[in-house]
Amino acid sequence: MSPPNQNEPPYITIAARKKAQQNSLIPPEWRLPSSLLTSSLPAISILKSTPILTPLDHEITSTHDATSLASAILSRRYTAESVTVAFCKRAALAHQLTNCLTEIFFSAAIERAKFLDREYARTGKPIGALHGVPISLKDTFKVKGFDASIGIAALAENPATDDSLLVKILLEQGAVLYCKTNIPQTLMALDSDNNVFGRVINPLNKHVTAGGSSGGEGALVGIRGSVLGVGTDIGGSIRIPAMCNGVYGVKPSAGRVPYVGQENGAREGASKIGLQASAGPIAASLRDCELFLKAVADARSWERDPAGVYGGWEEMGSVQERVCIGVIRRDGVVEPLPPVAKVLDEVVAMLRGKGIEVVEIDAPAFNQCQSLTNKFFGIDGGNHMFDLLEKTGEPLTNWLKPRLRRGKKMPLEVLVERHAQKIRLETEMLKIWTDAKTGRRVDAIICPVAPHPVPPIDRWNSAGYTSSFVLLDYPAGILPVREFREEDLYEEWAPSQRKPLGRWDEGNKALWDKEFIDRRVYLNTPLSVQVVAPKLQERRLLQAMKIIDDVIKSKRVSPQARL
Amino acid sequence: MSPPNQNEPPYITIAARKKAQQNSLIPPEWRLPSSLLTSSLPAISILKSTPILTPLDHEITSTHDATSLASAILSRRYTAESVTVAFCKRAALAHQLTNCLTEIFFSAAIERAKFLDREYARTGKPIGALHGVPISLKDTFKVKGFDASIGIAALAENPATDDSLLVKILLEQGAVLYCKTNIPQTLMALDSDNNVFGRVINPLNKHVTAGGSSGGEGALVGIRGSVLGVGTDIGGSIRIPAMCNGVYGVKPSAGRVPYVGQENGAREGASKIGLQASAGPIAASLRDCELFLKAVADARSWERDPAGVYGGWEEMGSVQERVCIGVIRRDGVVEPLPPVAKVLDEVVAMLRGKGIEVVEIDAPAFNQCQSLTNKFFGIDGGNHMFDLLEKTGEPLTNWLKPRLRRGKKMPLEVLVERHAQKIRLETEMLKIWTDAKTGRRVDAIICPVAPHPVPPIDRWNSAGYTSSFVLLDYPAGILPVREFREEDLYEEWAPSQRKPLGRWDEGNKALWDKEFIDRRVYLNTPLSVQVVAPKLQERRLLQAMKIIDDVIKSKRVSPQARL
Repeated sequence: MSPPNQNEPPYITIAARKKAQQNSLIPPEWRLPSSLLTSSLPAISILKSTPILTPLDHEITSTHDATSLASAILSRRYTAESVTVAFCKRAALAHQLTNCLTEIFFSAAIERAKFLDREYARTGKPIGALHGVPISLKDTFKVKGFDASIGIAALAENPATDDSLLVKILLEQGAVLYCKTNIPQTLMALDSDNNVFGRVINPLNKHVTAGGSSGGEGALVGIRGSVLGVGTDIGGSIRIPAMCNGVYGVKPSAGRVPYVGQENGAREGASKIGLQASAGPIAASLRDCELFLKAVADARSWERDPAGVYGGWEEMGSVQERVCIGVIRRDGVVEPLPPVAKVLDEVVAMLRGKGIEVVEIDAPAFNQCQSLTNKFFGIDGGNHMFDLLEKTGEPLTNWLKPRLRRGKKMPLEVLVERHAQKIRLETEMLKIWTDAKTGRRVDAIICPVAPHPVPPIDRWNSAGYTSSFVLLDYPAGILPVREFREEDLYEEWAPSQRKPLGRWDEGNKALWDKEFIDRRVYLNTPLSVQVVAPKLQERRLLQAMKIIDDVIKSKRVSPQARL
Repeated sequence: MSPPNQNEPPYITIAARKKAQQNSLIPPEWRLPSSLLTSSLPAISILKSTPILTPLDHEITSTHDATSLASAILSRRYTAESVTVAFCKRAALAHQLTNCLTEIFFSAAIERAKFLDREYARTGKPIGALHGVPISLKDTFKVKGFDASIGIAALAENPATDDSLLVKILLEQGAVLYCKTNIPQTLMALDSDNNVFGRVINPLNKHVTAGGSSGGEGALVGIRGSVLGVGTDIGGSIRIPAMCNGVYGVKPSAGRVPYVGQENGAREGASKIGLQASAGPIAASLRDCELFLKAVADARSWERDPAGVYGGWEEMGSVQERVCIGVIRRDGVVEPLPPVAKVLDEVVAMLRGKGIEVVEIDAPAFNQCQSLTNKFFGIDGGNHMFDLLEKTGEPLTNWLKPRLRRGKKMPLEVLVERHAQKIRLETEMLKIWTDAKTGRRVDAIICPVAPHPVPPIDRWNSAGYTSSFVLLDYPAGILPVREFREEDLYEEWAPSQRKPLGRWDEGNKALWDKEFIDRRVYLNTPLSVQVVAPKLQERRLLQAMKIIDDVIKSKRVSPQARL
């Protein structure tokens, strides 16, 4: 190692040490040849044929979701150890190709898996609903003995002294934790890039974003280096990476999944006067999302975390006997690009084709949600984060540089007025749960995840379609529908739609304007829809998602079919 | 009417008009002779023998609770009209003796009762669970066409243009609304006195307080001018008047009973950054509290009010099969006076006598709750209220004068730190739900309502025993235990307890110090206990309260036995 440059800001040395440490934790026999590291192929294609994964490793990681792994361990088809080793290997390979990991604890994971196997052999009983299932975690979660640096040098090399509550619960339920995943600097970006760990690459297509802020988690699940991971979401940070990587993701209402005890670069208490983030699953299947949410509900987190909302899984709502799905096609701020509108049309047609009632919902207040949500993000002026960056001379990433600056703290009376606006908007938006024409109760809403397909790196435009449901605290999930196909390239605006609605819409239209973009970048990227239910009704959401997913599944060709 | 004095501040004329209007709404045949108005007897004794109430009126108002009235109307034993007339009369009488009402709408109530009787005769079906049941409301609730002035002249003579959501729900459930009840100026006092309507008098004993801020409600239910009323509570404002007037009261967790659309003298949105008040029942019986909470839960308020927390009555928790009650004897700030400690002892002994497990709970963090709660009350400096008072030249009441002044708005970073303290305290306090020695789960906690019996007017000392459960957002209810008896006068401090713990404790000890008080003022006032359950578990609370109430009931002699 060369001696540190006297003029070099400290963050550079810290980042170098972190990357070297990361590297040292990948065993030589799990290293890909350098020719593959520089290949132009998408990561997912490279893993398909790597001999580093044995046939058993391939079987375990490519043909299962967490639910079937849990039952295969229970039926003794696989040991927890063999499952853990397979996922550690695949995560190591995924990381070399997509830079999706932060902290690596493979050996501890394998030790734990062996312990679980011994216990199961001894008692004949699984420890919990997740016995032996490997679960990956967004870097924000604290795992005793490891950093939770969230890509900020000032927070690195300061191992957590305790587990976050959710981590404790997952361990109590028998899960095996083996790695944490990469995020954007400040967590307030939709591409996952930072000065300590670098940028996450989309495993399906190197040219498009892997999303953020749970971008490493999305990429890792997308490439099946994990089948079940945990992200967090305050603007779309679970749902956007789920969409980008063609997987499932659910943002519950705040308080359903313990968020407490994470490192998020904000002062404790700050969330109580603004918007509340949620933790939730990013997974290979919808039933894995349910497995996770049920296991967490069974742990009665409200007895240990005051932010936990009382209620078991059975107490989180349900759909009506004769289900009714509402569709919201636009937010009135950014018009969905033609292929996004098309895929929503397709889903509506598929549902109606199966005899499911779908009603068009007019949501005139939706167009105020994005701007009000954005106003809540600046409450404390972001100064705590800037203080952290300055400690080690760390600059903002290129994407954040023009977008983030030290701000003024919001005066108290302005904050109160924002909350009053929020109450009025929430009250207006409650109307979407009833069909205005018939009075019919709507079980769930489908709408776009974003107004565009998965865009090129650093070009995500506006998060209103996801962040609005944080403002409203509605649970919302992502269903992959299909890949972007050749014929989608030729979808055009209706003449009436050509004129931009405003600045955000203009930026979005550029993502479909041949002058500014080669539309072929979207080929084979995943197209998804968002499903939304009323506040605190996660079971109702998952029931509606299952009905829709079953209909879509019959016709789905997903990028993971290439596994 | 004499011409207004030019130098008189406008609030005086407004108050005079309001009182004259109130007076005009009491029919001459319902007026008490002036000799009785100046009698030194407690109001409750005067009503016992008044011929203004017919034998049927007496029967309806003195021998029923809301639950039995609802079923008597259903079985056609009484008409809704006869029940409504009886309660309008009794409320009119109660008001003349205790000044407990603000808005009076007897004729509209009787019209509505007639309508309900016709509907029932026509359809054979009740409108809802509260068909024909008269319900009184704290003045803060808005009823279309009537003021919600909360005793502030600047807010008077401005009839509400819509009903508060809870009012709508009660009407949908078939209730008859007939009056609103008196409150303290600013709502931030524990004696109910204001410049527009004057002071509420305790119907059981003229020398002690009727409590606040739902003091009119407490007095009206105490004298059975109502069997079921609605109060609100952010520091004890349901529970304190319930104790003072010897009745039942339940403060639910925030969001269980719609609070929206009230006049509370604060800016919309303000509650979202501080503590959240609750609405809840003040009632003649525990089962009436349950009747109310169930009827409200059935109305699915969360579909109309974004602050509503999802969940039906069956989804609000339950006690264990073998119940375990915790007892917290002190908050560590103000030591309960000997008779208060004694009555708690008695309840514990009665429970154990019936074979119910009672465990002593050590709550070391409890002593921080009161002071943190108080810090949350000053967030916006109270300036909105002062602006309202100044509009009509209205002075603060004598009790508030030394206690309230325009303050500075709390800086944002201080507010965030307060919330961080709150989270830490909430987390600590979660430990009270488990017996530290055995790990046994505690279903509910019993503790004092206040550190003193019902004190003389304007001498309530510290609200920590009630306000702490607003900070923690735990549902909490009041059970009357018995009257203060002659032998209680001779209870003395243990030598170790004589030294004051601090300023609050010193003030409290003065309420038992013969130098400062004639202890006989407490004679025949009600002694109560508080029962508390974990957040959002109102059904669990009511189940535990019923177990305790059934044990107490067998030995109870209540002031209402004098009815």
